[in-house]
Amino acid sequence: MKAARLHRYHDPLKVEELDEPKITGPNDVIVRIGGAGLCRTDLHIQEGQWAEKSGVELPYTPGHENAGWVYEVGSAVTNVVPGDTVIVHPLVTCGLCRACRAGDDVHCVNSAFPGIDVDGGFADLLKTTARSVVKLAPTLHPKDIAALADAGLTAYHAVRKAAPLLYPGTKVVVIGSGGLGHIGIQSLRALTPAEIIVVDPSERALALAGEMGADHTVQVDGKQVDTVLELTGGAGAEVIIDFVGEKGAIEDGVAMLRQAGSYFVVGYGENINVPTIDIISREINFIGNLVGSYNDLDELMTLTAQGQVHLHTSIYPLDAVNDAMADLDNGRLQGRGILIPAGAA
Amino acid sequence: MKAARLHRYHDPLKVEELDEPKITGPNDVIVRIGGAGLCRTDLHIQEGQWAEKSGVELPYTPGHENAGWVYEVGSAVTNVVPGDTVIVHPLVTCGLCRACRAGDDVHCVNSAFPGIDVDGGFADLLKTTARSVVKLAPTLHPKDIAALADAGLTAYHAVRKAAPLLYPGTKVVVIGSGGLGHIGIQSLRALTPAEIIVVDPSERALALAGEMGADHTVQVDGKQVDTVLELTGGAGAEVIIDFVGEKGAIEDGVAMLRQAGSYFVVGYGENINVPTIDIISREINFIGNLVGSYNDLDELMTLTAQGQVHLHTSIYPLDAVNDAMADLDNGRLQGRGILIPAGAA
Amino acid sequence: MKAARLHRYHDPLKVEELDEPKITGPNDVIVRIGGAGLCRTDLHIQEGQWAEKSGVELPYTPGHENAGWVYEVGSAVTNVVPGDTVIVHPLVTCGLCRACRAGDDVHCVNSAFPGIDVDGGFADLLKTTARSVVKLAPTLHPKDIAALADAGLTAYHAVRKAAPLLYPGTKVVVIGSGGLGHIGIQSLRALTPAEIIVVDPSERALALAGEMGADHTVQVDGKQVDTVLELTGGAGAEVIIDFVGEKGAIEDGVAMLRQAGSYFVVGYGENINVPTIDIISREINFIGNLVGSYNDLDELMTLTAQGQVHLHTSIYPLDAVNDAMADLDNGRLQGRGILIPAGAA
Amino acid sequence: MKAARLHRYHDPLKVEELDEPKITGPNDVIVRIGGAGLCRTDLHIQEGQWAEKSGVELPYTPGHENAGWVYEVGSAVTNVVPGDTVIVHPLVTCGLCRACRAGDDVHCVNSAFPGIDVDGGFADLLKTTARSVVKLAPTLHPKDIAALADAGLTAYHAVRKAAPLLYPGTKVVVIGSGGLGHIGIQSLRALTPAEIIVVDPSERALALAGEMGADHTVQVDGKQVDTVLELTGGAGAEVIIDFVGEKGAIEDGVAMLRQAGSYFVVGYGENINVPTIDIISREINFIGNLVGSYNDLDELMTLTAQGQVHLHTSIYPLDAVNDAMADLDNGRLQGRGILIPAGAA
Repeated sequence: MKAARLHRYHDPLKVEELDEPKITGPNDVIVRIGGAGLCRTDLHIQEGQWAEKSGVELPYTPGHENAGWVYEVGSAVTNVVPGDTVIVHPLVTCGLCRACRAGDDVHCVNSAFPGIDVDGGFADLLKTTARSVVKLAPTLHPKDIAALADAGLTAYHAVRKAAPLLYPGTKVVVIGSGGLGHIGIQSLRALTPAEIIVVDPSERALALAGEMGADHTVQVDGKQVDTVLELTGGAGAEVIIDFVGEKGAIEDGVAMLRQAGSYFVVGYGENINVPTIDIISREINFIGNLVGSYNDLDELMTLTAQGQVHLHTSIYPLDAVNDAMADLDNGRLQGRGILIPAGAA
Repeated sequence: MKAARLHRYHDPLKVEELDEPKITGPNDVIVRIGGAGLCRTDLHIQEGQWAEKSGVELPYTPGHENAGWVYEVGSAVTNVVPGDTVIVHPLVTCGLCRACRAGDDVHCVNSAFPGIDVDGGFADLLKTTARSVVKLAPTLHPKDIAALADAGLTAYHAVRKAAPLLYPGTKVVVIGSGGLGHIGIQSLRALTPAEIIVVDPSERALALAGEMGADHTVQVDGKQVDTVLELTGGAGAEVIIDFVGEKGAIEDGVAMLRQAGSYFVVGYGENINVPTIDIISREINFIGNLVGSYNDLDELMTLTAQGQVHLHTSIYPLDAVNDAMADLDNGRLQGRGILIPAGAA
Repeated sequence: MKAARLHRYHDPLKVEELDEPKITGPNDVIVRIGGAGLCRTDLHIQEGQWAEKSGVELPYTPGHENAGWVYEVGSAVTNVVPGDTVIVHPLVTCGLCRACRAGDDVHCVNSAFPGIDVDGGFADLLKTTARSVVKLAPTLHPKDIAALADAGLTAYHAVRKAAPLLYPGTKVVVIGSGGLGHIGIQSLRALTPAEIIVVDPSERALALAGEMGADHTVQVDGKQVDTVLELTGGAGAEVIIDFVGEKGAIEDGVAMLRQAGSYFVVGYGENINVPTIDIISREINFIGNLVGSYNDLDELMTLTAQGQVHLHTSIYPLDAVNDAMADLDNGRLQGRGILIPAGAA
Repeated sequence: MKAARLHRYHDPLKVEELDEPKITGPNDVIVRIGGAGLCRTDLHIQEGQWAEKSGVELPYTPGHENAGWVYEVGSAVTNVVPGDTVIVHPLVTCGLCRACRAGDDVHCVNSAFPGIDVDGGFADLLKTTARSVVKLAPTLHPKDIAALADAGLTAYHAVRKAAPLLYPGTKVVVIGSGGLGHIGIQSLRALTPAEIIVVDPSERALALAGEMGADHTVQVDGKQVDTVLELTGGAGAEVIIDFVGEKGAIEDGVAMLRQAGSYFVVGYGENINVPTIDIISREINFIGNLVGSYNDLDELMTLTAQGQVHLHTSIYPLDAVNDAMADLDNGRLQGRGILIPAGAA
């Protein structure tokens, strides 16, 4: 099969022939890739930023946002059969630890992360397990939803955790209306009656936010904190969801937060650096957010099938992976970049 | 009546004659003080650290941990009558805003804070309202429980919020076994089945922690993080409750926290300063904690009446307020200092 | 002032002159009625069914769904001034008990219920207290929202309690698309992403349900249980909200309930009569629902102001109260009947 | 191996030689039984009451409360090895459905129930899967904890669901202090600060309840409802946990329930038969309870290891299974009956 592989950090990926993955365990599932999302993390991987953290040996195949069709299954697999359309939860999990049993499989104590620490989906085929495939309606095309497997799932997960705080009359500020942000806005619209305020420096991103259901859009112009405070009657918002995490977003976000409010950290880059006296006197919270659980992904696919969540994508053939990465790096990529193996379109 | 008043920042308090407070509103309640807790915040007030924040005009009377007997009530008061033994919730709240109606009166949008921004309880009499008095069994003496009104209530509130995370098999680390910490440990014992690990530099404090119900005590000796990790199977604790908030406590606490764990900030002093990449990759939370609600105080008084929570106190006559403050400042005060007006013993 | 009063059970109400209510307590508020909803409970009151339960002495004035303008306030009232547009929470509550402080004022231990056990709103003026008035935008007319004060609030309250169970992919069955049901459907639409199935015998009611946002409407035709099971993949719905409570609704509803599902009882009439073996082997729940809290009412008014909840009403002058009651009794009343005092239109 | 099998309904079990179970799937685990609890359900099975419900074909082996040592494992099993001491969760679950992933494996859509619908643990060996074994400290003997696998787990599960309702100052009534009840009381003691009131007709059972941590014991003497109301200040208890479900327990329990309280149904026999008007006007809830999840069992084993939960047992050799069943049927069995295969003691 073909795969786009990283042989040396900082080098372009190499699209080459590779042996097909083999079923080795009874719960294994091999998926024929229909679309693989390209993520900013893939750029960081190429630059070696994850080398130590993941401990992966080169060469290997990135790609952690995958959807496709089941190709082959192990002897104990009962939930899918070859030919089924599936989206792939990014983690391979054990199903035995407390976290896996408690709706929190992301904190499985025995997990692997294809595309990060083992071979991923920039290839014709991907190996995962029965626990990680969500079966979809055959009418859905993998390329249209692949990027929900990680970017979309992360945004949805944060919204799902924030939703119980958002009753009628509350306000939520979404910082950053990009790839994750626009899924976040749609998820907020679907799950909560809160008033949605979106903050972003880009006019185009704010226009998109409006289409996705934002009630107010606020451009980053130096007065964004005042504008948000005005929109919230001077008190700030009950919830901030920060998809940026750098370049002033954090200071802004904390200043926009209401007493007893919660700040959901999704984007990363800089530090949360807040005096404890402020945390206690305002009784505010900072909530970390990683990718969502399998059940979260299943819910997100329901919203997608109901037409409540749409992804904006740009398609590239797998062979053009390095072009796609260059476009992403240079801000030329509109929507989420999706790589498609030859023959999968 | 007599009151200990602050006339100028940095000066000692002056115990002097003052007009008795008057009932002016129909919901007012005047309490004859039986005991008023002395708090480190009172030292900070004297030093002027709260001058700007509170905006209080000098002279005024500090004292925000008060218990006593009802002395006089306004025309609309129905829940207490003169002579009733009461502990006084530290805030005066409106009862009309959403927060007051939703179990979160601490975030009342129209509150006052006797002892901070209006006259407090270092006096024979204190003025509050019907909404802030918790009626107690007449057998309880105010001096024995006054310090639960703020210090104890803060510790209990944090524990109450943490309790749903603490099922059998979980671990909680209490950082700091002082005035708040020892109430926190007893509250954890009463409310949760978690294994309690207490970290403190002082041997005496750790011995007290053991008596209060700690399962493990860990001295701050440079290896405290390793020791706690060992006690938690290498994974860290599901919950950290930090009653210190400075001098290395925060770095230690974050390092002792399990994936997906929650860090309860109670003590203050330094900053929470953590990279967002750590917050999201570990999916950890920082939870601010202020003083508890009226209902929290009512619950804490129930535990006290049941003998599940005990306070350690040192008694001073109100006239000796400056001695008490000096003892507190110099570490000579054992347990919580309680000021008692003449005739109230 | 004019008031419609019940002098003898089973007699028509008598519209007559009555002394205006007087401010007697510092927290009292007198409201000039702009609209008072007519409820089936008012028929039951007239028939004497509530005589023993309420213990009210005749003659008195019914009317427990009230909105209008503030007319006069007691000396301690700070949240409204004469002229303010308000909707009136049906209960007068103490603000001091645990329930009032914990977001559950409906279970206040010292409450009164104007229109049930003291004089209500079928009159020019109604006496309540500061704690029970929700201030509205002056552009809202009381007659358009009065019936949300009890009927709408009850429906909203049940939905608010059910909402945490209703994530994407779940189904909720609404039994009964009448006065409460159509508010329930709109509230479900606003608060949850669940698929809404509405069951009712009336084609017209089902057509209205569709307009309000139902995903599926099922006519009661003897096969309604099978139809719902089919719509839920054979498993039943995670949540049933039963606005009927009689005439077969309960048996149907229990049969439509999924394993581990919850049955919200709102309508009343017959018994819940289910073998304990079924309750435990299916692990199902029955959840009682009374009218909502003040905060619930505030949230419902937010949804109304946002245009997410609409009431269908028919207007009658207060003088025609007995015509309105007859129309309600005979099924001639479309939407919710609203009584308007002379001069309030 | 030896097994006690049911060949015909109403006949005694037959202890006979049977082929050993074989590993057939990669996740299978075969457990050498160290102790198998005898349950009233086993009597009902023998009498044929479960014949239709379970659909099991005769002959087969009952026994659904099992603990022992791992004997053999399938090729994909990683969490236990032969020789490990284990308690066996009563259900065999798929690990793939939403319920299994959401902490609610009891509602797995693909489960089996050894001892009910396939061969159970009244035998030398039992076949289950990797997902159902909880590894224990080797110092624990299976016979001492086997009955926690179902009876204990059911009681714990109900308490675990009730615990969030039970803050300091609340009261909980436990109806029935038998096999399940005495685990329930100990679990309440460990998990909650509530005041525990135990109601039972038997003096001996009440004495045991006192030892287990009940604050008040109330004998069923015709005045038990009044006594409980008195103990709860006339208001009733926030929570009732009914381990009986027949012979007047339900009527009593509903009468002992506070406004807005919750009635946990565990024992079964008769019907919950309550007017909907009472359910809504008191806003009370009925909560069904089945056996607990795997994570619940893990928590219960933690409490057991900590010495917070003890089981009372009577030991019988497996060969004496019919004697044990007769003793249970005739009320001669003290504590929980445990069957032990030859050589397992």
